[in-house]
Amino acid sequence: MSGRLAIIGTGPGNAAQTTPQARAAIAAATDFFGYAPYLDRLDLNDRQVRHASDNREELARARAALEMAASGRNVAVVSGGDAGVFAMAAAVCEAIEHGPMEWRALDLEIIPGITAMLAVAARGGAPLGHDFCAISLSDNLKPWELIEERLTAAAGAGFVIALYNPISRARPWQLGRALELLRGILPASTPIVFGRAAGRADERMAIVPLENARSDMADMATCVIIGSPETRVIERAGLPPLVYAPRFSERPEK
Amino acid sequence: MSGRLAIIGTGPGNAAQTTPQARAAIAAATDFFGYAPYLDRLDLNDRQVRHASDNREELARARAALEMAASGRNVAVVSGGDAGVFAMAAAVCEAIEHGPMEWRALDLEIIPGITAMLAVAARGGAPLGHDFCAISLSDNLKPWELIEERLTAAAGAGFVIALYNPISRARPWQLGRALELLRGILPASTPIVFGRAAGRADERMAIVPLENARSDMADMATCVIIGSPETRVIERAGLPPLVYAPRFSERPEK
Repeated sequence: MSGRLAIIGTGPGNAAQTTPQARAAIAAATDFFGYAPYLDRLDLNDRQVRHASDNREELARARAALEMAASGRNVAVVSGGDAGVFAMAAAVCEAIEHGPMEWRALDLEIIPGITAMLAVAARGGAPLGHDFCAISLSDNLKPWELIEERLTAAAGAGFVIALYNPISRARPWQLGRALELLRGILPASTPIVFGRAAGRADERMAIVPLENARSDMADMATCVIIGSPETRVIERAGLPPLVYAPRFSERPEK
Repeated sequence: MSGRLAIIGTGPGNAAQTTPQARAAIAAATDFFGYAPYLDRLDLNDRQVRHASDNREELARARAALEMAASGRNVAVVSGGDAGVFAMAAAVCEAIEHGPMEWRALDLEIIPGITAMLAVAARGGAPLGHDFCAISLSDNLKPWELIEERLTAAAGAGFVIALYNPISRARPWQLGRALELLRGILPASTPIVFGRAAGRADERMAIVPLENARSDMADMATCVIIGSPETRVIERAGLPPLVYAPRFSERPEK
């Protein structure tokens, strides 16, 4: 089997945050699969072929990429952020598990990237400085009840929570419902970070207490970080505040 | 205030996984604070000064770096992986909160990096492909009971769990105890990934079912990823298996 498949995380969308490893894999590939806005960020040459697709066709896109790799091409599947975090690596693995045996023999490489919560955290201070979790708010692929169960478990146990896919036109109410649920568990003053397009030209950061957090503070490009009861905010004159989770926990047992 | 402080995550330790942003900040700094093995990875010139320290002196190191930045130097605090994940960014924020007001006026930049769980996940497949959490197993800074509470909450709610700081000479029993606890919650067949030094020359990856997982499979350089009951393993003839968390969850309600 001569074909090759690289699943590449290009980071938050700022070229300075794309690793040399990702850059080299992009330069080497002949065919590119991915959501069109991610492919638009690449600086491809005339012999490199784009196969752009809609954001919601992950499994079909994974199968098409695997078929092309099996035909001998050098294929790249491109995600923003990290390819393994709510992105294409899991879809490709799923396609391999249920696809022809020859796909298992392909030369497959997964190349990590800076995922959104890390980029947002770095712009806001150190909100992920102690135990944390990442939850996708999309209920396209799992029941909403399971999302509520996970939010409840994580907030109750003192995890900081990074919310991916917080809101979209097709999913307008989920973030509001999640904030409402969290208001029943966490103190009203818990810091919430809305980090949009961190590290890019159109970056927008906001830090608000949970009692003032509203779902219209987020859009599709936002990662929302829900603090824990221990999260601290440091005010700075003339500069944005710093938010951080102390390394030391004095949280008493329940 | 003319001084500058950059808190830099250099990634897993493979130069191809250090971002151009981190590289540029390293080139610009005059003074470097960090755990000696991380400083050893940098390619410094004769005018760049190393202030290496022990791994456990995070707060003292943060204060020394802030003092030097306040004196007008261009200071870098260097972490492996991401500086905001169980690393120096939180210690620097803590020092700023409790330090002199002038430290709040410093030009502070935090530069994200590829954190260990992303590097390990990429080498193993897509084990972080759905909701997951990161827990430090170190009970130096929080009570062990809180770690058990978080492991129980996370495993019970179906999160994949990345364990940082799983074991050390000073903390020999914690990982074994955690695995024992998890065996009471998760199926015996749940895949466990032991990822040591992912992406480096001395990388060592192992995937074992929970029933066979032992604490001596990890060392200080290992990130352990505990699958969820939904995590899948794909066997490949002549190649390492792929581990992934399906994007789709059919998990029934309790």
